Amino acid sequence: MTTTRAWHLKSRPEGLPTSDNFELREASLPDLQDGWVRVENRWLSVDPYMRGRMNDVRSYVPPFEVGAPMDGGAVGTVVESRSPHFREGETVFHMAGWREGAAGPAEKFNKVPPMPVEDFHWLGNLGLTGATAYFGLLKVAEAKEGDVVFVSAAAGAVGSAVVQIARAKGMTVIGAAGGEEKCAWVRELGAHAAIDYKSVRIVKGLLDAAPDGIDVYFDNVGGDHLDAALAAARQNARFAMCGMIESYNAGPPYAFRYMMRVIAARIMMKGFIYTDYLASMGDFYRDMGNWVASGQVKSRETVRQGIEAMPEAFLDLFRGANMGKMLVKV
Amino acid sequence: MTTTRAWHLKSRPEGLPTSDNFELREASLPDLQDGWVRVENRWLSVDPYMRGRMNDVRSYVPPFEVGAPMDGGAVGTVVESRSPHFREGETVFHMAGWREGAAGPAEKFNKVPPMPVEDFHWLGNLGLTGATAYFGLLKVAEAKEGDVVFVSAAAGAVGSAVVQIARAKGMTVIGAAGGEEKCAWVRELGAHAAIDYKSVRIVKGLLDAAPDGIDVYFDNVGGDHLDAALAAARQNARFAMCGMIESYNAGPPYAFRYMMRVIAARIMMKGFIYTDYLASMGDFYRDMGNWVASGQVKSRETVRQGIEAMPEAFLDLFRGANMGKMLVKV
Repeated sequence: MTTTRAWHLKSRPEGLPTSDNFELREASLPDLQDGWVRVENRWLSVDPYMRGRMNDVRSYVPPFEVGAPMDGGAVGTVVESRSPHFREGETVFHMAGWREGAAGPAEKFNKVPPMPVEDFHWLGNLGLTGATAYFGLLKVAEAKEGDVVFVSAAAGAVGSAVVQIARAKGMTVIGAAGGEEKCAWVRELGAHAAIDYKSVRIVKGLLDAAPDGIDVYFDNVGGDHLDAALAAARQNARFAMCGMIESYNAGPPYAFRYMMRVIAARIMMKGFIYTDYLASMGDFYRDMGNWVASGQVKSRETVRQGIEAMPEAFLDLFRGANMGKMLVKV
Repeated sequence: MTTTRAWHLKSRPEGLPTSDNFELREASLPDLQDGWVRVENRWLSVDPYMRGRMNDVRSYVPPFEVGAPMDGGAVGTVVESRSPHFREGETVFHMAGWREGAAGPAEKFNKVPPMPVEDFHWLGNLGLTGATAYFGLLKVAEAKEGDVVFVSAAAGAVGSAVVQIARAKGMTVIGAAGGEEKCAWVRELGAHAAIDYKSVRIVKGLLDAAPDGIDVYFDNVGGDHLDAALAAARQNARFAMCGMIESYNAGPPYAFRYMMRVIAARIMMKGFIYTDYLASMGDFYRDMGNWVASGQVKSRETVRQGIEAMPEAFLDLFRGANMGKMLVKV
């Protein structure tokens, strides 16, 4: 039996989590059975959706259990294999993150496709966040060439991918982000306008940036950003509802001034999770793989070092401390 | 030149309108030109959407002008015709309501289809409100046999039609209405449950009535009813957003507690106006005509007498004073 270190949920947060909700403990890895592999993780993912799993609420992924190890996206190297499908040294993507080492049946681990990209992209533009951007924009919102697209948290992992996919497909893009540095990067990614919601009321910023309205909204934020999109929506606008980071930590519920525009403007809003579109992952790997390999879709990573840094990396997502994908390098 | 009496918009309301916003004035009817008809109205419609037209806001129908006659749905009798398409005595449906007499080009008037129903149905279950219910439920929300459907303002003109169409199509129906008398009628129409929102918090009432959740919500109310539907939505629930009577008179914006469920439950919300589906009016007349003629879809009308009663009939919509369609008999 091997031991490793894994983050455990120590207690459930009320509102904003703190580092006290997490505990790094020794954990034992079971001996490999036939068909199993053991992996050393090299990259660990922290994502906003994990906040929901800290609550004891049934949702699209089961909640973390108090006292038990947490999990999430990870990229690692196979270090021991009793499976004919894996050799030592192969790179795998899997969901046994928040820990250094992992062991289990081979089918829980996925070989990364043979593409000339760095490994961490399988947690970003070629992973959960990229697929979320791709399917949300193109399938849920059915965005098409010529559309005016508004995306919130545009300097985040999902938002920065949305900006670039929209540009690659010939759309006009308006991004919102917090602070001038992030806005400069959003423009660099190709957005026609970037709104700094820390310096202007988002509804005013959006109506100024899109005087003729928007066709598509990609929501990562909820609250005032969603309300601004309602205010600016053109006839038959489509909203892909992806995340509401503003609401994850249970602040007061938001009072929407423009909800009634849903009717007159025939707005369509739809929530989604990227796994709803697993059947189309081939399209995603083809398009996004080409864009990433050719440099048409770029990324930035905010990287924290060492397993110890994981809770703070996660909490920094809610402080807006990341540009692009937040990652922990083990 | 003939004269008639027509309601004019005297002033724009702030918040809830009052009778002071309306003025009944003599109005002249132009002499008939070739191809014109003159009509005496017999039934006039008041509908919640007219509240929006009292504001100076561009929407899906143009605003009423201050000092000018108002308009809306009406059923009348042709009393003079210079059109080869109309004979005196024929019954027509048209949009020159809020007045006793109307004159204009024949193409502005529609002969009612030859069906064995009373004339006022062309303003109700066989008119705007019935078509709104039919297309919202079946096209926008794509409700189908076996679905659990929640409808707000279920004792109103649109809501009572939704309840009965849903039953005719084999759905389970939960209606919300204000007061026991209305709830009793909603049950009589076939609803499996009726929630009196005046005696129980709507979210509690709905979660009790639909412990396994709802597949479809038909929104006539917005605010707390919409929030309750968000709370109770099953995976892939569809919301037809038809009206938000709670918000028409500009109370404080509503703070939604359950908006975030849009994502995890993949809720689809879509606003619509029945005119989006004019191409399918043939389906509507066929289905609804059969249901009304056979008695499978029933109606109640709240009828006020005389042109003078019109503003109060309209204002009573926002006081919840109507059961079924509110009409004025000239």
